[in-house]
Amino acid sequence: MQRIDRRKYDELREVNITRNYLKHPQGSALIEIGETKVICTAMIDDKVPTFLKGTNTGWITAEYSMLPGSTMNRKVRDSSRGKIEGRSQEIQRFIGRALRNSVKLDKIGERTIWIDCDVIQADGGTRTASITGAYVALVEAMNKLYVQGELPYIPITHYVSAISVGIFGGVPILDLCYIEDYKARVDMNIAMNDRGEFIEIQGTGEKGTFTYGELNEMLNLAKKGNEELIRIQKRSLGDIGKLIGQIPQSEGE
Amino acid sequence: MQRIDRRKYDELREVNITRNYLKHPQGSALIEIGETKVICTAMIDDKVPTFLKGTNTGWITAEYSMLPGSTMNRKVRDSSRGKIEGRSQEIQRFIGRALRNSVKLDKIGERTIWIDCDVIQADGGTRTASITGAYVALVEAMNKLYVQGELPYIPITHYVSAISVGIFGGVPILDLCYIEDYKARVDMNIAMNDRGEFIEIQGTGEKGTFTYGELNEMLNLAKKGNEELIRIQKRSLGDIGKLIGQIPQSEGE
Amino acid sequence: MQRIDRRKYDELREVNITRNYLKHPQGSALIEIGETKVICTAMIDDKVPTFLKGTNTGWITAEYSMLPGSTMNRKVRDSSRGKIEGRSQEIQRFIGRALRNSVKLDKIGERTIWIDCDVIQADGGTRTASITGAYVALVEAMNKLYVQGELPYIPITHYVSAISVGIFGGVPILDLCYIEDYKARVDMNIAMNDRGEFIEIQGTGEKGTFTYGELNEMLNLAKKGNEELIRIQKRSLGDIGKLIGQIPQSEGE
Amino acid sequence: MQRIDRRKYDELREVNITRNYLKHPQGSALIEIGETKVICTAMIDDKVPTFLKGTNTGWITAEYSMLPGSTMNRKVRDSSRGKIEGRSQEIQRFIGRALRNSVKLDKIGERTIWIDCDVIQADGGTRTASITGAYVALVEAMNKLYVQGELPYIPITHYVSAISVGIFGGVPILDLCYIEDYKARVDMNIAMNDRGEFIEIQGTGEKGTFTYGELNEMLNLAKKGNEELIRIQKRSLGDIGKLIGQIPQSEGE
Amino acid sequence: MQRIDRRKYDELREVNITRNYLKHPQGSALIEIGETKVICTAMIDDKVPTFLKGTNTGWITAEYSMLPGSTMNRKVRDSSRGKIEGRSQEIQRFIGRALRNSVKLDKIGERTIWIDCDVIQADGGTRTASITGAYVALVEAMNKLYVQGELPYIPITHYVSAISVGIFGGVPILDLCYIEDYKARVDMNIAMNDRGEFIEIQGTGEKGTFTYGELNEMLNLAKKGNEELIRIQKRSLGDIGKLIGQIPQSEGE
Amino acid sequence: MQRIDRRKYDELREVNITRNYLKHPQGSALIEIGETKVICTAMIDDKVPTFLKGTNTGWITAEYSMLPGSTMNRKVRDSSRGKIEGRSQEIQRFIGRALRNSVKLDKIGERTIWIDCDVIQADGGTRTASITGAYVALVEAMNKLYVQGELPYIPITHYVSAISVGIFGGVPILDLCYIEDYKARVDMNIAMNDRGEFIEIQGTGEKGTFTYGELNEMLNLAKKGNEELIRIQKRSLGDIGKLIGQIPQSEGE
Repeated sequence: MQRIDRRKYDELREVNITRNYLKHPQGSALIEIGETKVICTAMIDDKVPTFLKGTNTGWITAEYSMLPGSTMNRKVRDSSRGKIEGRSQEIQRFIGRALRNSVKLDKIGERTIWIDCDVIQADGGTRTASITGAYVALVEAMNKLYVQGELPYIPITHYVSAISVGIFGGVPILDLCYIEDYKARVDMNIAMNDRGEFIEIQGTGEKGTFTYGELNEMLNLAKKGNEELIRIQKRSLGDIGKLIGQIPQSEGE
Repeated sequence: MQRIDRRKYDELREVNITRNYLKHPQGSALIEIGETKVICTAMIDDKVPTFLKGTNTGWITAEYSMLPGSTMNRKVRDSSRGKIEGRSQEIQRFIGRALRNSVKLDKIGERTIWIDCDVIQADGGTRTASITGAYVALVEAMNKLYVQGELPYIPITHYVSAISVGIFGGVPILDLCYIEDYKARVDMNIAMNDRGEFIEIQGTGEKGTFTYGELNEMLNLAKKGNEELIRIQKRSLGDIGKLIGQIPQSEGE
Repeated sequence: MQRIDRRKYDELREVNITRNYLKHPQGSALIEIGETKVICTAMIDDKVPTFLKGTNTGWITAEYSMLPGSTMNRKVRDSSRGKIEGRSQEIQRFIGRALRNSVKLDKIGERTIWIDCDVIQADGGTRTASITGAYVALVEAMNKLYVQGELPYIPITHYVSAISVGIFGGVPILDLCYIEDYKARVDMNIAMNDRGEFIEIQGTGEKGTFTYGELNEMLNLAKKGNEELIRIQKRSLGDIGKLIGQIPQSEGE
Repeated sequence: MQRIDRRKYDELREVNITRNYLKHPQGSALIEIGETKVICTAMIDDKVPTFLKGTNTGWITAEYSMLPGSTMNRKVRDSSRGKIEGRSQEIQRFIGRALRNSVKLDKIGERTIWIDCDVIQADGGTRTASITGAYVALVEAMNKLYVQGELPYIPITHYVSAISVGIFGGVPILDLCYIEDYKARVDMNIAMNDRGEFIEIQGTGEKGTFTYGELNEMLNLAKKGNEELIRIQKRSLGDIGKLIGQIPQSEGE
Repeated sequence: MQRIDRRKYDELREVNITRNYLKHPQGSALIEIGETKVICTAMIDDKVPTFLKGTNTGWITAEYSMLPGSTMNRKVRDSSRGKIEGRSQEIQRFIGRALRNSVKLDKIGERTIWIDCDVIQADGGTRTASITGAYVALVEAMNKLYVQGELPYIPITHYVSAISVGIFGGVPILDLCYIEDYKARVDMNIAMNDRGEFIEIQGTGEKGTFTYGELNEMLNLAKKGNEELIRIQKRSLGDIGKLIGQIPQSEGE
Repeated sequence: MQRIDRRKYDELREVNITRNYLKHPQGSALIEIGETKVICTAMIDDKVPTFLKGTNTGWITAEYSMLPGSTMNRKVRDSSRGKIEGRSQEIQRFIGRALRNSVKLDKIGERTIWIDCDVIQADGGTRTASITGAYVALVEAMNKLYVQGELPYIPITHYVSAISVGIFGGVPILDLCYIEDYKARVDMNIAMNDRGEFIEIQGTGEKGTFTYGELNEMLNLAKKGNEELIRIQKRSLGDIGKLIGQIPQSEGE
């Protein structure tokens, strides 16, 4: 099988993460995976939602949006339509869950970390790129709190990345670009940690179904892809990245 | 392990489907699974969304909502908050995808089937109960078109049901009630067809992660649960149910 | 005159009230009057609107909605239209006023009683059925506070029910079903108490007008209908119902 | 009994109607009743709502609003709150029904008459003043169509006015000012025609109840008040007013 | 050049300001400039926006709206469209800035002055008429605080008025009526104080551009117009007006 | 005077325009002016607003937004607040007017050009940078129509750029960065064409006023700044830029 962009079935597109991309947020990253480009930021707010007040626990919330010029047909702004479209809601909930999975929220104080993922160019895989890039911005922001002495250590227990897999032309493939995604029978988004465990699996066969065997093949591809992405995250984070998982014994689970 | 309600780890709660529950919709069902109760309706509209006009293809769209009195703490109406909350958006997109999977949309004419799932009492598993119940309402509505001579056959290729599984106290369990769902480390919702194939997998480990082995155990439970649910759907549909998948050869895929 | 469903001009449809219909709310009732079915719930919130803070006075607020499948043509959700439609607003204000009329709000503490009336099947008279059913849910919820020792007595001074009357084919009739309501020259909704006094009269002759004599005939029918409804409420409430109006002398008006 | 502003129990406040108050609308009137002042306009649109297209029938729709400076405590704009408040919805539906009652909608062509009632100063009775004033604007607008030859006659069958009555200090009174309205046990708004028939009765005893005898006394006051208001409408309309009810025999009901 | 309404190029339309036009607001004025009529009110609220809490500083905020009947084609209400249109936003921000310019906000205590400008009839220049009229209402409201002893003096440093100028048929003109405004190549709105200084200049050449020389001619006309408007404001304010700028030396800038 | 970033009073910050920045839109540019960065896109839609249908005339509409991470304190999304804030409305109207000024809308056919300006990093001057960058994207998009033979020439009559000027510490300065803008007594935004004529002037002295002399000094600075910006636009556009103003004689004004 020859893929549209000549990749092998188990090959990621080229991935670049530009950390510290913006000047104002505590953490930021531009992630590029092939033609897909997402600006990810992490900003710290010294307030928590009402349901957490007085609990000495923090929160992480994510918002996802696509710029009007990120797609072939201009994307109408949510603010013009007067509501956030269902797809964005679904995606930003996915991003929030995946990132919260890695953070000991009861060790960050009563703070909200706002994660924003703004797609400036879309070519498939924007939600998984958002998770992978936003993780880097999140670590950078947490490190800022640590460096300023606001936190005694970085309360992040593991790496988190995400990638898409699917079945296209009957063959399981890794990291679908837009045309592949559009035509695929099955499309899965899989978030994993650096121990090879699953954080979230979202697989849908709107145009068909998939068997147990096909699922297994896709999960193996996702494992390979996420291992590569975590290597790239580590490279981008440099020394900061080494502090991940360095949680004092007495604070362990 | 003893479950909260004394069930075995692989045991469904009692399931009842009351077909033809309401007088106005073309299809309707009340589904009860333990204490969870959902009114599901299917109503036919002779219009399609703009993107389908002139294509001789139909559409299925789903809406999901919880009555204010369905939960312990009164559920604020979406109309009072001025927007549909993210969770509802996520769920109704899931319902829509799972049901569309079973229908040959290019054989229903330019019609929209509106699926409505209104939870009147919630005790875990409302989204999967919605899919299982709404499928029955959908078949009933399509049968009405068939009986009236509007369709030459029922263009539904297979059964669709859905169930939740999870890991609770370290053990994989089937069909989580609310307290189990609230405390589970992992929670998955799995829609399948009557050939044992997957239509959608949504698994999230917000409070932890899960291994490949745990995933496999959960998928097996889901398979068992969905087989039972489809048996109950068949019983509820009676003779109508036998028309599912009876598509003329020349119309096959 | 022969009515559409063979009733006499002064005959109610069959009425059933299923008290304690749902598990979570403090009070709940399913009211069925002919084919009209409404789920009514009463839920207690330990907060009051801003204008009552610090006054030691409570509040009762009502919301009314129709499920999409409750009507012949699918009812578009308020949350999809982005606003509560005028008709619902008008109805829920009516329900709130009628119920507040019976309660000594300054004796319930700083609590809000949320009344929710959700029509699951509509065949005329949904607003009056809502009042009649919601009253039962309200009493049940207040009784729960009383039994738990939160209130020294049930601060409800009288029964409240409501019924529709109209002029159809020149004849005053009681309890209009949908087709009668649709074609009637005059349509009135009348809430009364168990002393035969009026709480609210809403009469409109959009398709015609009505004379003083016709008004009198309709009021007499409404009196008869409400007497019957209050008898049914009493039967549904059983012993609890006997506590209505049992307010210590010193607390009287 | 002495009323707050020294009126007798059956006495209207001073009423002034300035017809043709604004330059742009086809019909307009400023109505002043005591300190209450409402600008009423009628504007003609050559379109009808979807449900009337192709029926050769017109429609009348009303909107009601209060200027921020019309009340003691600044009235927050509906546009700031993002929705029309329930009270305004209730009122504008009342205005629309009362005015439609007088017009043969199937004789005005496929036109919508937009009625706008904007309260610039509120001192009780704004909804009934709106009906009384808007009727004058409506007639003026219909006359414009007639004069331009767009209509062969003015298809208005009768006069419509409205007034409030209530029970205050145990005594039925006519035309409540704000303080009376605020303190009254019962408050009714009654729209009538020039034959003394009722068009709409809205009576509510939120703070108490009312008997059959009290109702009768209030209706008599309303009859007297509406007779006076119709006299004032006639004076304001002059010759135009004489065309009301002049409908060719063959067009009669 | 002959103007549409026979005015000279540098001539204002007739201006009337009716101060104390409404009974409830602390300050109010009806301003009429030709056929343009705007109700302006100033109401005092003892709260400030969050960003000013605890700063002992007040705020002035403005809202601008047009009644549906104020224009040739009925103006759809913002509340019906569900949002404030861009033009109104732009105008109310202009009004707010121009008025705040004249008030020492740190001397009015933690109060918000709500300015409302509601156009009842529009014939060009509504935004500048709003500023000129609202200034009078604002002074009246501040005077009320002063008279009640809530403020030791009126903390308004200067007069503020505004007028439109433009280039029409190649000629600079003062105070454009609607038709002139519609056809003008350039349209400017200029707010000034009584020392002849500029507060705000908004000039746009959507249909053309303008040169430095043309700008100068327009600014001269604006100066003349504003001088006349301030004379009219002074006449309307009478003795109150003399307190403007009378700020104790120690409180000066 | 020494400016915060050591610039001279009449010195622009460094300006970079990256044309063709995104792959999907017909025209796009990233403009950087100092630390301010704005993505500008121009996308062509083959529809026009209702008021232009059948007129053979096109339209240009602009939307402006700031990413949440573009500012020091996270910018809440308009879609979360449920409405576009007034400041954005004001700015996008300014951008639209300035760009429409340069295009012969009756020569582009019934098309809408959507201009989107999304600020990814804000440090003052975002609205003027938006105009300057969006102009480049607009020309690129129009050129695409021309190259494809959809237009016989590029119907743009002149260059458009915009810059801010202000008075800071008593001194007129060019191109204010955020801190200067925040503290300036006067802030003006000035759009000009390549003939040195004014398209729009927006000057506001919220914290003070300005004299005729100060205005003149600011206008001179703006002229100098816009001349430089237009030189940079020309460099970015290269050969395409030479087609500006090349309109056949017979099509001239």
